[in-house]
Amino acid sequence: MENRTIKAALLGIGTVGGGVYKLVKSLENEMVEKAGAALSICKILVRDVKKDRPGIPRELLTDNWKEIIEDPEIQLVVELMGGIEPARTYIIEALNAGKQVVTANKDLLAERGRELMEAADANSCDLQFEAAVAGAIPIIRPLKQSLAGNHLTEVMGIVNGTTNYILSKMSDEGMDYEEALAKATELGYAEADPTADVEGYDAGRKIAIMACLAFNSRVTFSQVYTEGITKISSKDIRYAHEFGYEIKLLGVARNDGDGIEVKVHPMLIPAEHPLATVKDSFNAVFVHGDAVDDAMFMGRGAGEMPTASAVMGDIIDEIRNLIHGCSGRVGCSCYKQLTVKPIEESVSRFFLRIRAANRPGVLAGIASVLGNNGVGIAQVVQKSKSRQAETAELVIITDQVKESGFQDAMTVLKSLSTVREIASCIRVY
Amino acid sequence: MENRTIKAALLGIGTVGGGVYKLVKSLENEMVEKAGAALSICKILVRDVKKDRPGIPRELLTDNWKEIIEDPEIQLVVELMGGIEPARTYIIEALNAGKQVVTANKDLLAERGRELMEAADANSCDLQFEAAVAGAIPIIRPLKQSLAGNHLTEVMGIVNGTTNYILSKMSDEGMDYEEALAKATELGYAEADPTADVEGYDAGRKIAIMACLAFNSRVTFSQVYTEGITKISSKDIRYAHEFGYEIKLLGVARNDGDGIEVKVHPMLIPAEHPLATVKDSFNAVFVHGDAVDDAMFMGRGAGEMPTASAVMGDIIDEIRNLIHGCSGRVGCSCYKQLTVKPIEESVSRFFLRIRAANRPGVLAGIASVLGNNGVGIAQVVQKSKSRQAETAELVIITDQVKESGFQDAMTVLKSLSTVREIASCIRVY
Repeated sequence: MENRTIKAALLGIGTVGGGVYKLVKSLENEMVEKAGAALSICKILVRDVKKDRPGIPRELLTDNWKEIIEDPEIQLVVELMGGIEPARTYIIEALNAGKQVVTANKDLLAERGRELMEAADANSCDLQFEAAVAGAIPIIRPLKQSLAGNHLTEVMGIVNGTTNYILSKMSDEGMDYEEALAKATELGYAEADPTADVEGYDAGRKIAIMACLAFNSRVTFSQVYTEGITKISSKDIRYAHEFGYEIKLLGVARNDGDGIEVKVHPMLIPAEHPLATVKDSFNAVFVHGDAVDDAMFMGRGAGEMPTASAVMGDIIDEIRNLIHGCSGRVGCSCYKQLTVKPIEESVSRFFLRIRAANRPGVLAGIASVLGNNGVGIAQVVQKSKSRQAETAELVIITDQVKESGFQDAMTVLKSLSTVREIASCIRVY
Repeated sequence: MENRTIKAALLGIGTVGGGVYKLVKSLENEMVEKAGAALSICKILVRDVKKDRPGIPRELLTDNWKEIIEDPEIQLVVELMGGIEPARTYIIEALNAGKQVVTANKDLLAERGRELMEAADANSCDLQFEAAVAGAIPIIRPLKQSLAGNHLTEVMGIVNGTTNYILSKMSDEGMDYEEALAKATELGYAEADPTADVEGYDAGRKIAIMACLAFNSRVTFSQVYTEGITKISSKDIRYAHEFGYEIKLLGVARNDGDGIEVKVHPMLIPAEHPLATVKDSFNAVFVHGDAVDDAMFMGRGAGEMPTASAVMGDIIDEIRNLIHGCSGRVGCSCYKQLTVKPIEESVSRFFLRIRAANRPGVLAGIASVLGNNGVGIAQVVQKSKSRQAETAELVIITDQVKESGFQDAMTVLKSLSTVREIASCIRVY
């Protein structure tokens, strides 16, 4: 094999880009032996070339995309800018110019994945995106390759570190939501505007991408039902513990043969389930398939070097593909057209916390409303501070029920004069 | 792309081979869309072609290796016979004939890996072996590809389901070793001769293979220090619980910069460590690297379909490589020559259970022997049934100490008249 150098450009040199640059440097002396060719970052696209960036040679910086797209020697473009535009345009142009692309851009993939993959396939180019889901955890390559011999039926993950940190603090230290969020913000785990994290949008984008790969059918973010953690109270978590559960924000994708369910919501999972032990800002993805049975992948879901680790794995793969002239080897894997089912059709168990009048017969009334609407009760606990208290708290875990039927039951429950408040309603694994 | 069919041969059609054959059938209708070509199993090598094998067409069977090796249409050989010979000869011959090889043969890889990889590289062929380590868990591809941007410093795994089942039963149900082993044998988790499992040889082969991939340097099974679980008592496990630990049989490989440590032995790991929660016959591999930080992969370590899942992932990868003419894309990754350190040089903490005379001053005597030999005490618990009891039980967890120094201290301890027995000596994470 001749002694080659693969020339690459980075788009963006923020946190992750800086990490990638460090890794490229740290692997400089062994890249030929490792991947078969040297790697040279020869251009870095930035908005402001004058900004001081310690450790990054100024001569690599450019604010002119044309210098990259029109340079035939650049065979690999690594997009780490984030956002929809101009990232989308740059990626499509790079693919159309026959360049390989590595990206960490989950927002873009979850909304415009089809378009990007089609551009890659049309040009026999690669579009790799291991870092877009669950940070450092190898999950894209396992889903597309290692587990390709399976019909997967479930992918379920803790794929947002911010909310997992918040829920861990609430569970382990009894903090309430606001206190835990403040702590997360202080430590830099939560952004100034935490909406995308706490409302489940970030997790929704990741589960949309994983659903595509797991079920070989296109799912976009707009098809994902999302529900965040802002309404979870420390009381819910205490009750969950009493029942032997932890509360986690989960991205869930299921394929039961008559369509795909894709959703993000808080969920009670048994304390002994592997996902229940995933704490703090760690991420984990749990997979079930007809051959593999259960498998789980855990690791850092974000951060400079963990995310750079995933990007670097893709870059090394690209070097190998370029040397062997086999770009496009693993293309778009969405070769099926499966229906994505609306949330109303999905089936769940529910944890209900109800504040009700503290007098005889109230539980019977509630139980009968649930029963009349086809909602079976699996477990129930009644709490009241004292006989004199005006209200009592009822905690119910239901049997499996279709969402639509359950919502009907809730409407009736709310209309009961004895029901003061349905304080919580959380799905149960 | 033209409509191609890749022709493959299976060597062996036992449990795993049968699973692979089932998966090939179950994916028949989507293989072209999935991998870019159809797959046809056109020969199966067996010892006895007359034996009845339900579901396997008799016309595929042959007991003549020449029918496979001399058939130029067969591009892929899947070796599932196990053992060193004739598997080694067949694999080398297949590679020399320009055929791609997928194998699940850990014994062979752990002892003759270099020779096999050299034959693969010399012929620009692939030798893939995802199923050789940790069954269904994608770990070979993550180590060789996804995590290739890291300098990994630690790989640690529960990679033997039999011993993990036994230790889980001892931990969760208080069984003693013999009872748990009997249960494992009854359920088919342990073989009639369980030596390779309970003495850590099976785990040793797997950690040797993983060490090669993690540190890019060749490690063979003969370089792995192995210690099994036969001496672990339910008492040790109870004490471990008191200190907040679980006992697991771990394969451990570390690269601290001045050489590689590779060993298999029981270990106390903190109850909150992700590996501590891996129960029953599940396997898990924990990885630490400079970029990825901590990551863990968990799943079924054995069994017909889980192992077939890993083999099938490799087969699909080979179909893609054959279509794109890029076999040998990811070759041998052992491009460094690192020293494998003897066990005496490794550093550990130890859990010691000592039966000693029940009289004043005994603990002081033991502590002073340890101290004089450079073994610090981190925690100690003294148990005795009553003041009248002739002996007391001391449980000590030491600070970090070099193995050689620790063994010297043990020699002196054993010579003390007050020390009746060093009942247990187990390493601590």
